[in-house]
Amino acid sequence: MKRYLSTIQYVGKNYCGFQMQENGISIQEVIENSLEKLFNKHIEIFASGRTDAGVNALGQTIHFDVDTTIPAEKIPLAINPLLPVDIKFVSTKEVSKNFNARFDVKKKTYLYDIYISPVELPVYELFAYHQKKQPDISLMKQCASVLVGKHDFRAFMSAGAQSKTFERTIFKISIKQSKNLISIEVCGNGFLYNMVRIIVGTLLEVGYRKKTSEQISLALKSLNRSKTGYLVPAKALFLKNVKY
Amino acid sequence: MKRYLSTIQYVGKNYCGFQMQENGISIQEVIENSLEKLFNKHIEIFASGRTDAGVNALGQTIHFDVDTTIPAEKIPLAINPLLPVDIKFVSTKEVSKNFNARFDVKKKTYLYDIYISPVELPVYELFAYHQKKQPDISLMKQCASVLVGKHDFRAFMSAGAQSKTFERTIFKISIKQSKNLISIEVCGNGFLYNMVRIIVGTLLEVGYRKKTSEQISLALKSLNRSKTGYLVPAKALFLKNVKY
Repeated sequence: MKRYLSTIQYVGKNYCGFQMQENGISIQEVIENSLEKLFNKHIEIFASGRTDAGVNALGQTIHFDVDTTIPAEKIPLAINPLLPVDIKFVSTKEVSKNFNARFDVKKKTYLYDIYISPVELPVYELFAYHQKKQPDISLMKQCASVLVGKHDFRAFMSAGAQSKTFERTIFKISIKQSKNLISIEVCGNGFLYNMVRIIVGTLLEVGYRKKTSEQISLALKSLNRSKTGYLVPAKALFLKNVKY
Repeated sequence: MKRYLSTIQYVGKNYCGFQMQENGISIQEVIENSLEKLFNKHIEIFASGRTDAGVNALGQTIHFDVDTTIPAEKIPLAINPLLPVDIKFVSTKEVSKNFNARFDVKKKTYLYDIYISPVELPVYELFAYHQKKQPDISLMKQCASVLVGKHDFRAFMSAGAQSKTFERTIFKISIKQSKNLISIEVCGNGFLYNMVRIIVGTLLEVGYRKKTSEQISLALKSLNRSKTGYLVPAKALFLKNVKY
């Protein structure tokens, strides 16, 4: 048995999230079914972490064990024809037996896209979140700097999570605007349930002057979810990459 | 009766093209039905030109006549709730009675996106055309320069067109690459049936050294469709803007 690390890309729209659930088709289920077709046995996959319903991935990572003569780098070519158009393997390499796609994560980067327009724009609607007015980017950057570092992020976590630890480190939050598109990248060692989407909602509320960075600094310390911003929609969130 | 010019954006995937046809739902039909709901009478719309099945528009333009007290700039807000998510008005202004969205066009710009990756990437697949290998961009630019100018473009037109004139002027073709995404913009005073998609297919064949710029120069003069490149898919084509 060899262990493989694969990078996968998916559009989350048609799935109930990464992890198996009773209320819909999960990305994990689709991948495991395809691996079973390819290797004629059930193969469990382990991701860097789950992504929620509707969330996309440019570079999610998974590991799995299988005994095969297919060279690692050819596995994407073998499995992709068995996968639907919205889930594909990008690359695969062999890793050591004790490598773990979840526990060995060093850095994860998420991307969130927002577009500014007086009206909804169909081409942008699929993968970006609509806002009618320009927020103040400098206020958003100021608020982002409050969140960078090692903190207990319970104030940025939705109820219903299974996490037992709440301390996470955010290495960097970058906020860039090109014409009417704002891209927010959040890089950290891990994230709580809905954390990136609550961070983005909070940055927007600060950008629109509904909250101040000082209030967010206090909200972070309060560990109180009711003091941070709202949860922005899943469709505009991308797991960009995972570093080991 | 006043005449209005509207800029509209749409995702072409679910439509048989801009113009009314018997084999599917057209964008024209959806817009005219929504205008009828808003103004309680049938209103015919006239576009800058038709777009084919599956082609998208960032900035298509239409004109129509109506007698209304709604201020021009408020028409998008009034009509958009009556339109599906994949077709929306971006802006509207009043124009003179003799303005014509088709005949008064000075410049139209189309955008075509290509992504380079060993495997298909789900996030890109919706709006970009997949190529496995990097083409030679400098060869593509050389070929593009052959096409710029006023020419009879019959060699770049699919059969089944209704055009009576074949001379068109291409003002500019720009080819830019950012990481694995190649964006080709073609700006001209008008285009024949499938012309932009045949130009892109031809540029790719030159970029992959299947044809030379010299051959394309001769193909252009030959007026012979069989000597130019293949027709690339519609999903990656965007009517970017129309200038009057």
